[in-house]
Amino acid sequence: MSLPRIAVTMGDPAGVGPELCLRLLRDESVRAYSSPVVYGDLGVLRRVARHLRWPEPAASDVNDLCAIDPDGFEPGRVSAACGAAAYRYFTQAIDDALAGHIAAVATAPLNKESLHAAGFPFPGHTEILATRTHAERSCMMLTAESITCSLVTVHVGYREVPQLLTSERILDTIELTAAAMERMRGRKPKLLVCGLNPHAGERGLFGDREEERVIAPAVEAARARGFDVEGPLPPDTAFLPKYRKAADAYICMYHDQGLIPLKALAFEDAVNVTLGLPIVRTSVDHGTAFDIAWTGAADVSSLVKAVELAAKLAGRRAPGTG
Amino acid sequence: MSLPRIAVTMGDPAGVGPELCLRLLRDESVRAYSSPVVYGDLGVLRRVARHLRWPEPAASDVNDLCAIDPDGFEPGRVSAACGAAAYRYFTQAIDDALAGHIAAVATAPLNKESLHAAGFPFPGHTEILATRTHAERSCMMLTAESITCSLVTVHVGYREVPQLLTSERILDTIELTAAAMERMRGRKPKLLVCGLNPHAGERGLFGDREEERVIAPAVEAARARGFDVEGPLPPDTAFLPKYRKAADAYICMYHDQGLIPLKALAFEDAVNVTLGLPIVRTSVDHGTAFDIAWTGAADVSSLVKAVELAAKLAGRRAPGTG
Repeated sequence: MSLPRIAVTMGDPAGVGPELCLRLLRDESVRAYSSPVVYGDLGVLRRVARHLRWPEPAASDVNDLCAIDPDGFEPGRVSAACGAAAYRYFTQAIDDALAGHIAAVATAPLNKESLHAAGFPFPGHTEILATRTHAERSCMMLTAESITCSLVTVHVGYREVPQLLTSERILDTIELTAAAMERMRGRKPKLLVCGLNPHAGERGLFGDREEERVIAPAVEAARARGFDVEGPLPPDTAFLPKYRKAADAYICMYHDQGLIPLKALAFEDAVNVTLGLPIVRTSVDHGTAFDIAWTGAADVSSLVKAVELAAKLAGRRAPGTG
Repeated sequence: MSLPRIAVTMGDPAGVGPELCLRLLRDESVRAYSSPVVYGDLGVLRRVARHLRWPEPAASDVNDLCAIDPDGFEPGRVSAACGAAAYRYFTQAIDDALAGHIAAVATAPLNKESLHAAGFPFPGHTEILATRTHAERSCMMLTAESITCSLVTVHVGYREVPQLLTSERILDTIELTAAAMERMRGRKPKLLVCGLNPHAGERGLFGDREEERVIAPAVEAARARGFDVEGPLPPDTAFLPKYRKAADAYICMYHDQGLIPLKALAFEDAVNVTLGLPIVRTSVDHGTAFDIAWTGAADVSSLVKAVELAAKLAGRRAPGTG
């Protein structure tokens, strides 16, 4: 049986993506369950390898998209050229996954400022994916061994969250998360849903009763559809150990409600998965880390875990094994 | 040398407060550094002791305020009578502390719904304190061994936070927290300030530039006054172990930004301190827990820690030793 072919996008050339890809390609453990191919620029990978005095990558492990002049940019700097290249790697991987040429996509980080400088007004990978795959509903889930969080809203300002929360959107997030966790755990998962306000509004004392008006109806609807789901819980106590033990995943109303506890507890070991797409896509749980880019200091474990999870999720789907 | 006399308010009679006070009074370790006196109802404490088949408290350990009919309410239920009693215990303790009769106040939890039913429209202890002591500025700080968080806004709805954030309020929180941490640690503390938006706004990509407009100016002003303070940091990565190691305390923009990581990491071992008051006041870091009230299951460790910290902070101030 052949292993699933996983496209690993190189991300922003000026960030830690290239060195992570170099490390990944030399990691034999990854090849036990997948056949990784880097979507990037061979010239950039070679430049970084020489810079770090590491072995150069095998050309056969790279889908060389020739998207940037390898000597035409500086590490650790925002640039339109790097943003455009990162966009090109990612969209090619999406298109190849949609066409069935690869089994899944695992992404190294891109830099949003570079992306914007290149004229692509997306807040991140997730939104590019939703647009390019015409997904009707999608959501971002972060998963580590000890904690998994799905986000109802993601890359929006603090102020914009309440108006974006709808029962439909919460219910979508519950359904997508339950399906993914069932695939990962092999059994029906238990989900905990957080409130929005301190103490989940404490029965209307704080906030605009978003818990009663918007969140509770979504939880009720999900229960009626047979999901094992509880909430809305007071956000501050929801992540106490007793609840973490009981929960397969949390449904979080906003970015930091999920990512603060996830990162505090699981450090940078989490993997980011986009749910609800026609393709499998996972990602590292960290940014381009311009401050340490091209120094060789970046930890590859999150990318390894992203490839591992991509292979696992793709394996259950079967298509695209190369 | 006599020990500092600490008023321990019994909190809501229908909650876990009475049993926690009974446990505390039997804890010999507490008497090594303090002389605790429960502000509550002796009749209620006796009823709970009989109910649990525990020894009754010594009358000399209780300031019996006779605020409620000991048989006139049910455990685990919201009631105006209980709210009024809890309010009476607390305000008496505040007044005695202001008068110098006691060295500090440590509070068991009150129930906000009962408080409101009794006609006291306060969201919590902190706001009662601010009003009754005429504090010009005060803030809530939660502290555990591994993490300390001060909150710029506390018991307000999610939506109300942005309009309440001002540079002045953030600067007040920084100054009050630095002073308290210096008393606790015996040296100049390092403070980390969180942003409001995901990724601290990522240079204006998310949010209304609250980081640049409101938070950064407060951090600059604090630095100009000699405080060791950094920020605004992206909230999700601010609580990674490397930052926790460097920080003596975090300045958090809203309730759950501070309490989610604090509770996830320190469980229910944290102590709540109100800073900026003319009196020393600490509190447990949990609620009335109506679901387990009067079962004897409640853990007294947070109340013990609250008394310990109250004694420590009061000891440095000296007045009111009994």
